[in-house]
Amino acid sequence: MNMEQSQFYMTEAIKEAKQALLVDEVPIGAIVVHDGVIIGHGHNMRERFQNVTFHAEMLAIEEACTNLHSWRLEDCELYVTLEPCMMCSGAIVNSRIKMVYYGASDPKAGTVDSLYHLLNDQRLNHQVQVVSGVLESECSQMLTDFFRAIRKRRKEAKRLRQTD
Amino acid sequence: MNMEQSQFYMTEAIKEAKQALLVDEVPIGAIVVHDGVIIGHGHNMRERFQNVTFHAEMLAIEEACTNLHSWRLEDCELYVTLEPCMMCSGAIVNSRIKMVYYGASDPKAGTVDSLYHLLNDQRLNHQVQVVSGVLESECSQMLTDFFRAIRKRRKEAKRLRQTD
Repeated sequence: MNMEQSQFYMTEAIKEAKQALLVDEVPIGAIVVHDGVIIGHGHNMRERFQNVTFHAEMLAIEEACTNLHSWRLEDCELYVTLEPCMMCSGAIVNSRIKMVYYGASDPKAGTVDSLYHLLNDQRLNHQVQVVSGVLESECSQMLTDFFRAIRKRRKEAKRLRQTD
Repeated sequence: MNMEQSQFYMTEAIKEAKQALLVDEVPIGAIVVHDGVIIGHGHNMRERFQNVTFHAEMLAIEEACTNLHSWRLEDCELYVTLEPCMMCSGAIVNSRIKMVYYGASDPKAGTVDSLYHLLNDQRLNHQVQVVSGVLESECSQMLTDFFRAIRKRRKEAKRLRQTD
């Protein structure tokens, strides 16, 4: 996989993240690719559906399972805009995904490189190859902008309450 | 929570595991309890639906989210017959479940006590209290019997092929 290809697919994951933005969710997006074809899409929908499992990666993996009629995604690659959390790393290992490409790091909850190296545990029956930092600044900027806008809204709401 | 109560709820999780057995799935069951009421049930259905996320805990957690209309399960307890894997531990932490009671240990993939202590990571914004070994022998025996039966069937199938 060359850099141009990985950037192409990460751009698709970013498009998914932007879908999350449209409904005011934290902008995280993911896709699953099999033989060059996108067979799974997902964006964070935790708040909208009040379902803790509705992370981008989980939804993309579930769609990929449906499309392949298999829980084994051995020849698949996952692209995600943010370093996966513990739950999503677990789903990636359990589904035997071959490679993970991620954009921004998550120092607080990332389990691929930040807090743990869960995708490369030799005690488990599957390890995953990882490429980090794909279109990192674009993936990271979306999150920065989102949280900045939230802080601004909260500050404005507080100011309005005080002037009432 | 006294031992009698925790055994009562684990018996309910075992009933779920037996539902998995009926459809020839690895017998693992889970329930989520809120204010003494069971608000989530789940049994392993990975093979039947070819969906890698269909672990007992995940299904029980999703049902609990639906019933509480919230991804936050802060005052809930989860009972599961087998030590949770990485994915399920992640969902437990993400949903902020208060306590986890599990039956049998999983030395190969358990992430609560065996391979990791994921439910008690002080770097994350939530830690979970854990009680292990609740009705351990009953939970463990179901799994031993299941895998023994599979090995017997495979051996018999091999013998029949050889005598053909």
